[in-house]
Amino acid sequence: MKLKIAVLPGDGIGPEVTKEAIKVLKAIAQEFDHSFQFKYASVGAVAIEKFNDPLPKKTLDLCKSTDAILFGAIGDPRFDNDPSAKIRPEQGLLRLRKALGLFANVRPVKAYDTLLAKSPLKRDIIKGTDICIYRELTGGIYFGEKTLSDDGNHATDLCDYTREEIERVTHLAFKAAQSRKQKVTLVDKANVLETSRLWRKVVTEIAAEYKDVKLEFLFVDNAAMQIILNPKQFDVILTENMFGDIISDEASVIGGSIGLLASASVGEKYAMFEPIHGSYPQAKNLGIANPIASILSAAMLLDHFKLFEEAELIREGVERSLKLNITTPDLNTKYEHISTSKVGDFIEDFINNPK
Amino acid sequence: MKLKIAVLPGDGIGPEVTKEAIKVLKAIAQEFDHSFQFKYASVGAVAIEKFNDPLPKKTLDLCKSTDAILFGAIGDPRFDNDPSAKIRPEQGLLRLRKALGLFANVRPVKAYDTLLAKSPLKRDIIKGTDICIYRELTGGIYFGEKTLSDDGNHATDLCDYTREEIERVTHLAFKAAQSRKQKVTLVDKANVLETSRLWRKVVTEIAAEYKDVKLEFLFVDNAAMQIILNPKQFDVILTENMFGDIISDEASVIGGSIGLLASASVGEKYAMFEPIHGSYPQAKNLGIANPIASILSAAMLLDHFKLFEEAELIREGVERSLKLNITTPDLNTKYEHISTSKVGDFIEDFINNPK
Ligand SMILES: [Mg+2]
Ligand SMILES: [Mg+2]
Repeated sequence: MKLKIAVLPGDGIGPEVTKEAIKVLKAIAQEFDHSFQFKYASVGAVAIEKFNDPLPKKTLDLCKSTDAILFGAIGDPRFDNDPSAKIRPEQGLLRLRKALGLFANVRPVKAYDTLLAKSPLKRDIIKGTDICIYRELTGGIYFGEKTLSDDGNHATDLCDYTREEIERVTHLAFKAAQSRKQKVTLVDKANVLETSRLWRKVVTEIAAEYKDVKLEFLFVDNAAMQIILNPKQFDVILTENMFGDIISDEASVIGGSIGLLASASVGEKYAMFEPIHGSYPQAKNLGIANPIASILSAAMLLDHFKLFEEAELIREGVERSLKLNITTPDLNTKYEHISTSKVGDFIEDFINNPK
Repeated sequence: MKLKIAVLPGDGIGPEVTKEAIKVLKAIAQEFDHSFQFKYASVGAVAIEKFNDPLPKKTLDLCKSTDAILFGAIGDPRFDNDPSAKIRPEQGLLRLRKALGLFANVRPVKAYDTLLAKSPLKRDIIKGTDICIYRELTGGIYFGEKTLSDDGNHATDLCDYTREEIERVTHLAFKAAQSRKQKVTLVDKANVLETSRLWRKVVTEIAAEYKDVKLEFLFVDNAAMQIILNPKQFDVILTENMFGDIISDEASVIGGSIGLLASASVGEKYAMFEPIHGSYPQAKNLGIANPIASILSAAMLLDHFKLFEEAELIREGVERSLKLNITTPDLNTKYEHISTSKVGDFIEDFINNPK
């Protein structure tokens, strides 16, 4: 397969971890005889520095002309400490999602056997957890109309959903469930919210088209409990934008390390893959950043193009590296100095010589 | 002190657990020379049965004429399985909160040393956790305007807050923090929501009146992580209605048993105290219901009238019962047949003879 991939390394540790993901993708291309072409562009603080714009037109144009986007991380403390800054690195990501119509955020959460001890949750609670969260990303209260009264004493935010917005992410979630454990749990608050009742109605209708997938409902407050009490009960979780923000961040804690979590943001035409961790500027250029989330984002990219065998090989390499303690210091209790690039090298070698 | 207390036992296990709370309150009255008068009234499914109304006027009038309300539990499976039922037990509670103007929900969450093994979280994560959550209860998106388009394909919910709504619960939270660990964490989503920015502004202004209390901010998605990663960092959590619903249910998991969690709902004039568990109809009349949440609700009632020494004695009795395994089967790994009333008897004895 021929793929043209836009690479947006971004800020902080973004470039370092993205480099390892590309190393791994190149190994896959070689082993499976694919042709992956990588095109680089600036985003975030580095783009503000060079072009005074966190999302330069050149970058957006590149994204629109490629098959997929591999994204690093965004954010710089120089901007965080200046609340008056009008131009912010984070705008680059929000504008990119909007411009590309990325309406679904996909977040797998897995408890790796070798890392169970790292989790704040007990081993028997999390062992075997394998969840995929589908969060609607461009609607709901985050994007609804906002008002503030003239005297500044009365504020409103509107949560707003249409059938179409619900349908498209729902189809993605059900399709994913078909090749997983055939279960979708809709998280909502249908006992109180009108938008949640619309979600429940639309999702129930669509579920009828996927007879092999079981649909369950869970109120968001109960979901926040169940994710801790019994995460193994979940397969695919489908939910609206704000509930997805809360629930997916809560679930990210299960695995014991945010340095392992990949995500995809998907639209009709475009798809972007990125680690969920931030730019972690304190670690920049120290060779200590964990590249696994970025490498697993590359695996999600391959999944997106149905290169399942290739993606699986990357995941096997990751599991092997965890098992053998070939990990960066955030996870490594045994060896002290395994660097970002050494982890990438190990997984690259594994792909060239799986054993 | 003279107190007239309305007792609304409600449905399922409500009457059994409330009976033990009253047993304990009577022991306190005797030991400390108070006069507590108990007045009973119907609410929930039992009220529907007798009066065809989950909140009969007589009940509401009684509540308005007393100093405080002790509430059991509400809900009956006969109604849950009939989605067409117009009259539902739960309406009794919602109408009661509204009629009494109970604008703040207060939920303490504590990790008892003797129960650390029960928690899904690891011992060293939760040991020492002692949080009190102040949730705004009558505003926000649960009560804002709802719309559904004529074709049924577009729904909205409005999140709506005024300065006054924020102020009153904020004062309660800061006053509570003064006699605790002097810290309030405001949970919001001020990077996205206008209502959250209003919360942040108003709470920051009020914080200036409480110089001894430290104010911190946390986005709700991060809060959902931090409650699992490091619950000990929190003292008082202050938040709006829906975030409070999610966060307080999530936090309820920490202690390892929902059968221990009490709550208060407080307004300008009235205050109601109730366990957070439901009516648990399967356990009705079996003598297995855990009365501790109801007994701790009685302790919160005493706190409300500044009877701190009395409340503390109840809590000591509860801790002693946990330590000695004088607990109902949900918690008891050692003895099989300690009943609801035996637990109440033990705490009553402890109050009469603290040692
Ligand atoms: Mg988030
Ligand atoms: Mg709740």
